[in-house]
Amino acid sequence: MIATSGHTIKAFDDDLDALRALISQMGGHAEHAIGEAMRCLVQRDGEGAQAVVDADKRLDALEAETEARAVQIIALRAPMAGDLRDVVAALKIAGVVERIGDYAKNIAKRVPLLEDAGKIEPISLLPEMARITVGMVHDVVDAFVSRDPEEALRVCERDKAVDDFYDSIFRSLLTYMMENPHNIGQSTHLLFVAKNLERVGDHATNIAEMVYYAATGRSMGERARGADPLAG
Amino acid sequence: MIATSGHTIKAFDDDLDALRALISQMGGHAEHAIGEAMRCLVQRDGEGAQAVVDADKRLDALEAETEARAVQIIALRAPMAGDLRDVVAALKIAGVVERIGDYAKNIAKRVPLLEDAGKIEPISLLPEMARITVGMVHDVVDAFVSRDPEEALRVCERDKAVDDFYDSIFRSLLTYMMENPHNIGQSTHLLFVAKNLERVGDHATNIAEMVYYAATGRSMGERARGADPLAG
Repeated sequence: MIATSGHTIKAFDDDLDALRALISQMGGHAEHAIGEAMRCLVQRDGEGAQAVVDADKRLDALEAETEARAVQIIALRAPMAGDLRDVVAALKIAGVVERIGDYAKNIAKRVPLLEDAGKIEPISLLPEMARITVGMVHDVVDAFVSRDPEEALRVCERDKAVDDFYDSIFRSLLTYMMENPHNIGQSTHLLFVAKNLERVGDHATNIAEMVYYAATGRSMGERARGADPLAG
Repeated sequence: MIATSGHTIKAFDDDLDALRALISQMGGHAEHAIGEAMRCLVQRDGEGAQAVVDADKRLDALEAETEARAVQIIALRAPMAGDLRDVVAALKIAGVVERIGDYAKNIAKRVPLLEDAGKIEPISLLPEMARITVGMVHDVVDAFVSRDPEEALRVCERDKAVDDFYDSIFRSLLTYMMENPHNIGQSTHLLFVAKNLERVGDHATNIAEMVYYAATGRSMGERARGADPLAG
């Protein structure tokens, strides 16, 4: 953890804190959206799913607010070195978190299309896969707020588990579809959900690399990126 | 296409043009990296693959240069409205293109690990899948440079073809692995390559949304995002 305090201009620290608070707020929103979308999927809660879709507008607004603040800080405070890396990272991270929210929204949009997916075995794996990705989003945002590159590295390491989940869900859904061709439509919806969750994990990894660079000034490199499909 | 010319300050237009030129340069670099990585994969060109890995440093440097220029423009020119959206988009797009380059690098790193993958049927599908993703990257960067939201929309529509390629490659590799368990290692490498190409398509779609917003001030919404796996 690298401290950013000790600026001669207190207002500057307040600006950076406000920026970190916005990213934290966006991350919390995205986490909640994924969790809610999955709950609605499992419980067939169409109204709840619509609420997730509607709430995404709020995340778009928070992204716009984060961008505006970051631009303002660059224009008014002319930050240098680590501070500038933080501001630029916040600007980029806001865009990735907004996209994570879109994946949650896409999952919620599937809910009304699912009839008896409860009978489809692999659906039982999806909430656990979602739990891991939500945890990655939570921890990588914490890593940014606390400027903790080690935490960012740990988040990357967890992406492999998400990839493995996706691949095992893909395989069992394929088997399921071969056995029950009339359920291909339903299975495809679940596969789409699994793919969205897999991409959330990939984007959390992307954020982790931005956090690592912002905190250290060095690139994380390839270390944690892209676990093998089917590996393990 | 929306023209950005006509600024009272000519130097300002030059700044924006320089920024667009950098993004264009980054895009060309990423396209070349993917194409070369695939050529090396098919031709087992280990030296060429290493060259792709080494060349990625250049893309990282171009991203840093793009960020520095964008920050400088914000600090010195205080751009407004569409100009500011362009500068912020360039900053974010640079990060996504850098990541696309990393996927190409990851493909190149697989080349030395492939022995007789030429015998694995699905490898014949990979170059075509790569061709589509390279085309998406090329056109979405052009869309940014020419501020063409319609072109950005067309790029998004092509992501579904990439997803379909990935799913059909995944299925044929699974079949292949079941028939030839001793080739599971080799098939897994090819699956990893397909997954990297699929993510390149997803990131090109992400850039398309940034271009659409920068050019129009409106979000593209969910229209083109996330084609169904197995669909079509």
